[in-house]
Amino acid sequence: MAADTALDVATRYYQAWTTKNIDAAMSYIADDIVCDAPAGRIKGVADYRAFLAPFAEMLISTDLIASFGDDTTAVLVYDTQTPPVASAPGAECVTVEDGKIIYSRFIFDRLPFDQARQ
Amino acid sequence: MAADTALDVATRYYQAWTTKNIDAAMSYIADDIVCDAPAGRIKGVADYRAFLAPFAEMLISTDLIASFGDDTTAVLVYDTQTPPVASAPGAECVTVEDGKIIYSRFIFDRLPFDQARQ
Repeated sequence: MAADTALDVATRYYQAWTTKNIDAAMSYIADDIVCDAPAGRIKGVADYRAFLAPFAEMLISTDLIASFGDDTTAVLVYDTQTPPVASAPGAECVTVEDGKIIYSRFIFDRLPFDQARQ
Repeated sequence: MAADTALDVATRYYQAWTTKNIDAAMSYIADDIVCDAPAGRIKGVADYRAFLAPFAEMLISTDLIASFGDDTTAVLVYDTQTPPVASAPGAECVTVEDGKIIYSRFIFDRLPFDQARQ
């Protein structure tokens, strides 16, 4: 049986977190993940969960716009709807090793969330 | 000869704008492009140029992180360095038709640029 591709892993992770199955999502995240997010670098699965879970919890809907990948890298582009921001697209570019995401570049616009808080 | 893929077109467009060849970059943009950017929808190549050119002009460097695509869609993920913001990653998810980009979802974090202006 062929090993899961990076895109397989990223897609399952995405389907889990966008349906608020945070435990399932974290099963695809390496313990020592490094994530370069808009607010700075996040290290380790505990801090990654603390970053992602509150956002996942407030999701109203998501829409996968595009997903591509090769053996080691995958990119997901999607839109999200939450109470503070009606449309907040994001992109995650992840590196996968042994079935887990070990690095992520996480891109979204913080400005509308910042404005909603003020 | 096979037609150019969406990724071929997106890659040439990216190589052009990130080397400040704005005319060359615009040759890959459809006249009636629709671009959903962080600040809202941009319509038409003139407004798209007015959006992209000032940013391209201030580029110090860029680094292509990942690029993928199929016949109609391509995604580029990259980092940019400009005087106001040392690291501003972006993602462009584009739809290509007849060799030109007709739709783009453009994702980046406006917050550091907003903060640099204040």
